[in-house]
Amino acid sequence: MELYFALSGAGFVCHTVNPRLSPEHVSYIINHAKDEVLFIDETFLPLVAEIRDQIPCVRAIVLMGGVLMGERSAQAAAQIEGLLFYDDLIAAQDGSFDWPDLDENSAASLCYTSGTTGRPKGVLYSHRSTILHTLCSNQPDLMGFDATDCVLPVVPLFHVNAWGVPYNAALCGCDLVLPGPNLDGETLTNLIDQFKVTVGLGVPTIWAGILKAAQDAPDKLSSLKKAIVGGAAMTEVMRNAYKRLFSVDMIHSWGMTEASPMGAINHLLPKHDELSEPDLNAIKLKQGRAPFGLERRLIDDDGMVLPEDGETAGHLQICGHWVIDHYYGHQESAAPGGWLDTGDIASIDPDGYLTIRDRAKDIIKSGGEWISTGELEGVAVSHPGVQAAAAIAAHHEKWDERPIIIAVKAQNAAVSEQELLQHYEGKVARWQIPDKVIFVDQLPLGSTGKVLKTDLRDTYFYVLRKSEAAPLPRSCGQMRGLGLVPVAGADQQNPTGVAAYPRCEYNG
Amino acid sequence: MELYFALSGAGFVCHTVNPRLSPEHVSYIINHAKDEVLFIDETFLPLVAEIRDQIPCVRAIVLMGGVLMGERSAQAAAQIEGLLFYDDLIAAQDGSFDWPDLDENSAASLCYTSGTTGRPKGVLYSHRSTILHTLCSNQPDLMGFDATDCVLPVVPLFHVNAWGVPYNAALCGCDLVLPGPNLDGETLTNLIDQFKVTVGLGVPTIWAGILKAAQDAPDKLSSLKKAIVGGAAMTEVMRNAYKRLFSVDMIHSWGMTEASPMGAINHLLPKHDELSEPDLNAIKLKQGRAPFGLERRLIDDDGMVLPEDGETAGHLQICGHWVIDHYYGHQESAAPGGWLDTGDIASIDPDGYLTIRDRAKDIIKSGGEWISTGELEGVAVSHPGVQAAAAIAAHHEKWDERPIIIAVKAQNAAVSEQELLQHYEGKVARWQIPDKVIFVDQLPLGSTGKVLKTDLRDTYFYVLRKSEAAPLPRSCGQMRGLGLVPVAGADQQNPTGVAAYPRCEYNG
Repeated sequence: MELYFALSGAGFVCHTVNPRLSPEHVSYIINHAKDEVLFIDETFLPLVAEIRDQIPCVRAIVLMGGVLMGERSAQAAAQIEGLLFYDDLIAAQDGSFDWPDLDENSAASLCYTSGTTGRPKGVLYSHRSTILHTLCSNQPDLMGFDATDCVLPVVPLFHVNAWGVPYNAALCGCDLVLPGPNLDGETLTNLIDQFKVTVGLGVPTIWAGILKAAQDAPDKLSSLKKAIVGGAAMTEVMRNAYKRLFSVDMIHSWGMTEASPMGAINHLLPKHDELSEPDLNAIKLKQGRAPFGLERRLIDDDGMVLPEDGETAGHLQICGHWVIDHYYGHQESAAPGGWLDTGDIASIDPDGYLTIRDRAKDIIKSGGEWISTGELEGVAVSHPGVQAAAAIAAHHEKWDERPIIIAVKAQNAAVSEQELLQHYEGKVARWQIPDKVIFVDQLPLGSTGKVLKTDLRDTYFYVLRKSEAAPLPRSCGQMRGLGLVPVAGADQQNPTGVAAYPRCEYNG
Repeated sequence: MELYFALSGAGFVCHTVNPRLSPEHVSYIINHAKDEVLFIDETFLPLVAEIRDQIPCVRAIVLMGGVLMGERSAQAAAQIEGLLFYDDLIAAQDGSFDWPDLDENSAASLCYTSGTTGRPKGVLYSHRSTILHTLCSNQPDLMGFDATDCVLPVVPLFHVNAWGVPYNAALCGCDLVLPGPNLDGETLTNLIDQFKVTVGLGVPTIWAGILKAAQDAPDKLSSLKKAIVGGAAMTEVMRNAYKRLFSVDMIHSWGMTEASPMGAINHLLPKHDELSEPDLNAIKLKQGRAPFGLERRLIDDDGMVLPEDGETAGHLQICGHWVIDHYYGHQESAAPGGWLDTGDIASIDPDGYLTIRDRAKDIIKSGGEWISTGELEGVAVSHPGVQAAAAIAAHHEKWDERPIIIAVKAQNAAVSEQELLQHYEGKVARWQIPDKVIFVDQLPLGSTGKVLKTDLRDTYFYVLRKSEAAPLPRSCGQMRGLGLVPVAGADQQNPTGVAAYPRCEYNG
């Protein structure tokens, strides 16, 4: 946290690296960024010792002091030649410093995207973009911290600069609680209780852990007013649980590294005052409205702008004061005409509320119509017998793609494929009901906790035979306006037999 | 309101003129600004007809339509040659417009200061300064509007762009209620009730009117949550009344035309949670902490920076992203080294809460020590027999200046001079107790409702004879650090006889 402000304020670039990436990725990122000084925790001494020879651009390595380390450690010094100690460096200074007068467009910090597609890419933030993002994302209708808040960001410092939360906290002077490495529900619940945290931020799995730990001691969350959820979709079950058990309002938000990250957050309008709880939930489960300073649009595969009617789904593009125009070190524009393609498929309702339907690379195109894997997964996990689920495309000789579900059963649950498929009836259009369910022990997860669908697609590569009918997209209403022609003529039956080919075998 | 956004957005400068100034001042301002098009309400047809020949730079005059006017009016057209009608101009357009891409440092709007000292001076706001002011002044710890608010600014549109409130409202998309010309308490109370206003903004006299009108029907203010007070100091009596009668939190703020205007606003810190009501009031009656984006300091007469200990009073200077560096059309800097002298005498406590003590030109310098006229006036109006009061300096042959009070008695009150002077005992240091009270029927007010102390000083120009002792400044603690040496040797008696010279007679 000190480095965030010290480095950027002194005219250096603060580059946070995700240490959970593979050593090859970490080395690649450090070299690509041309990092000169590496500040590390004790935990990462072995990793850095391993890659030391691969990162010649690094002139100095500094071991952070404080809670974990204390002062010098001979044991640590033995692991890396020339290791410096943060506390020593600080102790040698007199505390005065002439802060330079910097160009607002100069670089302040750098984050690399996690690299699930291709090599990690750098996103360089300027002082200007950081200040504007902070001022806008801290408006009352966004994060809205004030000086009386105590904020707990359960987000790694390397993850889009902890979602920008440290800057928002410094802006208003609120208290900030950094959770450290233990992110289990019990530890976090006790932190909230101990420091009287008023606002927390985290991905849904974090909030699930807190819910589990606090449900028998709801008083421990009595100070908590707002739970901001990002990184993945929040479920209605969780939202209701927080409301009923703890009187906590869960606030959905959406963003990305390329957008500093704030792209949407969900607060209500006066017109929603009189809504019933189900209608209110339907709105609160959306990702929310755009902040002042950022614009959004939906386009189809041909680049035509689509209507914002809450139903039409398209490629989500964003444009704004904290959205990148190119990746660090890349020549080509990442945002032609100012518009960055987010890689998400989304819809936007007439009040401006965004709903993320799917990652564009994950969406299933069946007979010319899109089927959202996010929606299919949501239905699967709403079944009490299912703990986790991923929807992927099976290849179909006629319909091109059809959805199948890879699911993990809940503990001691005995749900059958047929039962889960029936669970979809009435919840999605019939032609969107998956063709197959495969139960597995666990889903493969990447370093940021997201399901690795590329792995799943490699492992479970099905091809549906042409002779087996896939259902007809019955209506274009759900995903209309995409300029695609539905394929006509087949019946409404779910296909039954599917042939499985592991990817390597198929390629062979 | 349409003009605010239409003109600035189209690349023109929106210049609002205070029509309550003298015709000479209005002409001077229009000529100095080189205004080209004048948009007016029907009310001001006679004024503009009167000065038409004095403002040759104006190429067109447009009569606003809407509620007051309807469409064309032959009667209006007869008063000013070539008069255009807003509704006609709008009707002739098809509603499409290509907004230009403007340099953020180009001018967006222009306001002239009221001109109580010298000629009115122009303050030119850029797009950049306006956006930054809006983003910062709408933080949760400042004005803090969100999309569910309904905001009533009881502030003229020409008064620092209505304190910037229209921009804050547009930023968050809240409702905005513009009160029109009738600003009496009953009308405003009914507006709050009718539109369910949640936040109101105005000077203390506005809030006094609402208090009087609503005290027998407090339900009419049930939607109101925040009452933001600026322009003059709020009293404890009023703050307590709003809290007790309406559960409304009065929020003190301070600003000036040269600062767009936000310079301070009063919100509490977590450390204040446990304070008793009197201690809380002592904090809430201060003008408040500085917004992010604006810095403040106190200096003495020699330009030395003074401590922020809550007691030391000095010249308040400000520096920030929405503070002018020079007046429009003036060559010399208004803020040497970035620091604008506000003309106010203030103190700042260790938590950053500002207290405005006086206007520098109004402060009384007695025997080398400062006496705040604002404090003396506050004590006077805290006496139930006093409705309004102004403190001014009498000239003293030995002590240079001594305070006297010009007061208006409350209806049917029979307070005597001696009684009011005794009322000061224990409330201010003995040497600060005024030497004289003069009761008058009313105080002279300027066009913005402030007491014209220049007029008072002209009318009531006293000289205290040297032989009559003025009290010694007993302690430098109250106003310490000013680099001034207290004069020693006199006793603690209040002088009695004073000789009155109307200014003209004295000059003669």
